[in-house]
Amino acid sequence: MTYCVGMMLDEGLVFMSDTRTNAGLDNISTFKKMTIWEAPGDRVITLLSSGNLATTQSVVSLLDERTKSPDDRTPSVLGVPSMFQVARLVAATLREVIDKHRDAGQEADSAFGATLILGGQIAGSPPRLFLIYPEGNFIEAGADTPFFQIGETKYGRPILVRAYDPAMNFEDAMRLLLVSFDSTVKANLTVGAPFDFHVYQKDSLTAGPHGRIEIDDPYLHTVANGWGSALQEALESLPKFSLPKG
Amino acid sequence: MTYCVGMMLDEGLVFMSDTRTNAGLDNISTFKKMTIWEAPGDRVITLLSSGNLATTQSVVSLLDERTKSPDDRTPSVLGVPSMFQVARLVAATLREVIDKHRDAGQEADSAFGATLILGGQIAGSPPRLFLIYPEGNFIEAGADTPFFQIGETKYGRPILVRAYDPAMNFEDAMRLLLVSFDSTVKANLTVGAPFDFHVYQKDSLTAGPHGRIEIDDPYLHTVANGWGSALQEALESLPKFSLPKG
Repeated sequence: MTYCVGMMLDEGLVFMSDTRTNAGLDNISTFKKMTIWEAPGDRVITLLSSGNLATTQSVVSLLDERTKSPDDRTPSVLGVPSMFQVARLVAATLREVIDKHRDAGQEADSAFGATLILGGQIAGSPPRLFLIYPEGNFIEAGADTPFFQIGETKYGRPILVRAYDPAMNFEDAMRLLLVSFDSTVKANLTVGAPFDFHVYQKDSLTAGPHGRIEIDDPYLHTVANGWGSALQEALESLPKFSLPKG
Repeated sequence: MTYCVGMMLDEGLVFMSDTRTNAGLDNISTFKKMTIWEAPGDRVITLLSSGNLATTQSVVSLLDERTKSPDDRTPSVLGVPSMFQVARLVAATLREVIDKHRDAGQEADSAFGATLILGGQIAGSPPRLFLIYPEGNFIEAGADTPFFQIGETKYGRPILVRAYDPAMNFEDAMRLLLVSFDSTVKANLTVGAPFDFHVYQKDSLTAGPHGRIEIDDPYLHTVANGWGSALQEALESLPKFSLPKG
């Protein structure tokens, strides 16, 4: 399993992904599920992936190769003129990879599937955020649905629904995401730290702060330990329930 | 879908269930998913059900009928000598109902399945709490796993994991459960108020406070509205995240 979130804020975009992959419960590994493509001054694109690792790595490698040779940049995520075109290109590549392996004797229908979150900005347009389905179609975030989750989305959703605010700053958004990720990790063994993140400042057109929050990161520990007592206090702050007579 | 929780506390047992059932998204109804059997001074038994409504109603009716005629009380949930025997009886009845309809041309493998939470106390023994699977086997709650959830369990789980404490009193447990239910309702359309509850005081051997928290219950509204800001404050109470340089 996997847990990734892409979030649209007034200030820009925030992305976070876990790094655990597993084939069964006795075969777990750490893989990066976040890819950042950057052409400073022109565009920054971030891709988060969940699903079959062979599929998502193949998609990323195919897209990546085309960005390396300038002559072959069309179609490339660094060459097409709009984020919508980037989304179409990524979605088509995903569909192509899945279809190729589906024909090669796939047993389970969804085994080679993958779902992606794509976000970024190209000079001259605002930042955009997409959720790309394995079928190769996609939806875009807007004011009503300003963040996307993929993978094991349920445990971490209530806090996002309650606390997300488009006006929040990047530091608060990162804290919120870490709480959401911590809630998920506590409940599902197939989601795990370290967590990768990327904070993209709107109109900067260069990759923002990004990196990895390691499993022994002191701040992560503070959040994990502090959240339990913070929740207790939140519960305490609600009025008492009065039991009716039995 | 459904959401039910059975919880073991030092003081006794607490049960809560939602009441929404649906066949598709355009056919929703309200049904009670909680059954209480009581023989004051001897035993109190509570059953929560999730899954196919025809199956769970059939199980409850079969068990219920046997409690009505004293001559036919063995095997009956009011006749057998221990909670373990009650669990075996309920589990066997569940299995029987599922098997009967499975043979009758079921299409999906799990369509007639159901999962139950069973808890109660019989004079001379401590309260016990069981989770009964559609296959007719079951597990019992203990100090390590002191509560069971069935149905749409994920959204409401993080708060239970964080805030459950066996020493909490019934009022605090009810408040915690309402927060957990509210988080689930906010995320899944197939779980909905009103909520039924039963609070069983250990060694009382009579049904405790029980009833229905209606959709327009003022306390439920207070929890639903207050929890958002309480969570915001809980987040604020955690130390700030500092972004590294980009």
